[in-house]
Amino acid sequence: MATHADSVHPACKVVLSKNVANSLVAEVQEGVKTLEKPPHLVGFLANDDPAALIGFRYSLRQVSRDDIEDAILAANADSDVDGIIVYYPIFNNRQDQYLQQIVDVSKDVEGLSHRYIFNMYQNIRFLDPETKRQKCILPCTPLAIIKILEYLNIYNTILPYGNRLFGHTICVVNRSEVVGRPLAALLANDGACVYSVDITGVQKFTREGLKKRRHEVVDLEGKTIKDVAPLCDVVITGVPSESYKFDTSLLREGAVCVNFSSEKNFGPEVKEKASIFVPSIGKVTIVVLLRNLLVSDI
Amino acid sequence: MATHADSVHPACKVVLSKNVANSLVAEVQEGVKTLEKPPHLVGFLANDDPAALIGFRYSLRQVSRDDIEDAILAANADSDVDGIIVYYPIFNNRQDQYLQQIVDVSKDVEGLSHRYIFNMYQNIRFLDPETKRQKCILPCTPLAIIKILEYLNIYNTILPYGNRLFGHTICVVNRSEVVGRPLAALLANDGACVYSVDITGVQKFTREGLKKRRHEVVDLEGKTIKDVAPLCDVVITGVPSESYKFDTSLLREGAVCVNFSSEKNFGPEVKEKASIFVPSIGKVTIVVLLRNLLVSDI
Repeated sequence: MATHADSVHPACKVVLSKNVANSLVAEVQEGVKTLEKPPHLVGFLANDDPAALIGFRYSLRQVSRDDIEDAILAANADSDVDGIIVYYPIFNNRQDQYLQQIVDVSKDVEGLSHRYIFNMYQNIRFLDPETKRQKCILPCTPLAIIKILEYLNIYNTILPYGNRLFGHTICVVNRSEVVGRPLAALLANDGACVYSVDITGVQKFTREGLKKRRHEVVDLEGKTIKDVAPLCDVVITGVPSESYKFDTSLLREGAVCVNFSSEKNFGPEVKEKASIFVPSIGKVTIVVLLRNLLVSDI
Repeated sequence: MATHADSVHPACKVVLSKNVANSLVAEVQEGVKTLEKPPHLVGFLANDDPAALIGFRYSLRQVSRDDIEDAILAANADSDVDGIIVYYPIFNNRQDQYLQQIVDVSKDVEGLSHRYIFNMYQNIRFLDPETKRQKCILPCTPLAIIKILEYLNIYNTILPYGNRLFGHTICVVNRSEVVGRPLAALLANDGACVYSVDITGVQKFTREGLKKRRHEVVDLEGKTIKDVAPLCDVVITGVPSESYKFDTSLLREGAVCVNFSSEKNFGPEVKEKASIFVPSIGKVTIVVLLRNLLVSDI
């Protein structure tokens, strides 16, 4: 029993995305060195030009929306172009999905091609499963979060590749088609038990203790975030709303918290309870995009 | 939803203590190289002579129990002796505790001196807390289990030294003074929430989310292993009974299981549920003893 109330300041480790990004930049730089010429990325990008950083060529091409289809097809055919990014929304309807599918698979660095999306959900890791030379491209934001979890040692390298999240219970708050749902699927395919939460309810994504080859999804009728968040050793939020705050009272002592929303989904009190807190992921997403360009180029 | 019942063989990773031991042997060998002469270990040891392996000198001295006190005092005074092991029980009463305390602290490689035990429970890591040159010796079996958890990446090196188990919930089945209780204290001092279970009931060892400098202990009245084991991502057993088996139905999917008993506390079905299983720890305990000899010699 304690004989005196010796108190210590809570020791939550705050990890900035630039630190994770730097570790990946080194990997990308090594990769670029092995190439004959710097890869050429073409596209619309909302961020500052990051490509200049590490020996990529980057062209921003501004076209009218009536010309975008032809511009993409021309870039597909141009052997001087290695990767293509299209900044959405353009038409803000199903025509945008159509445009995503006309980017050539070999130049799709955002991982939006149907073939990549299908393989991602199906837990098929290679375009050539027999020879395993061409890894499938994963969408940048979910992949950035995976790279962060690797950096934080949540992925356990003592376990075989593909199963390294086995034993972890992860809450993902957001189930958008762009990030939340693919992220939940990827984490579950890597062996985690994932609770995917949005305003419509809670779904559980799991390979049932590695017994399945890919994840399966179950609706947890009547369950809310209050039921599942306390079970989780990792909580990942991506709610695009200034007013939303994750209820820290639901957090397990020592949980790992990652926010991928551009808004602050965690209040400052998260540091009183979490073991590790990653307040934003933007810088990692950019490096992951360049990494995808490199993978697609090899 | 799954469209077909694709089943995969459970992929529990079985880690043998020799693999953990080998990684420590390399570290110990490096340490020995820095010394002018091989350290000399004297004592009674129940195992085969392991010291020959890595350049230690080892003398087994057999004495009658009437001579043991004088023999220890002589070894204390002998500058040719670097470490002393005494194989207990000798008298099997409080005289054995007396003998433990007459081994000189500087030659106590088993970590049984009161000063080491006190520091261990108090979470004081150095004999010289100001200059931090002389690390306290920890008892071999608890330390071997810690080294195994480090090898398995349960200790997260992204967190600061001393807090690297923060976020883990660990069940220790056995609360003996020799292993179970010191182990629970050490794990809690490193930041884990530890449930210590024996036939008398359940105790919780915790720093309350790093808010305390050292662990505190609470009796969980009325709770049993059934209540606490399902909360744990690591389960460590050390029940010295052939008939005892941990009830695998209480195990969290993907938990890490370590058995330090000489009996098999887990049945083979543990591999259907655990992510990692360490069936025994003996080989690590021996290397840790040599490592302690090295630390005490520096």
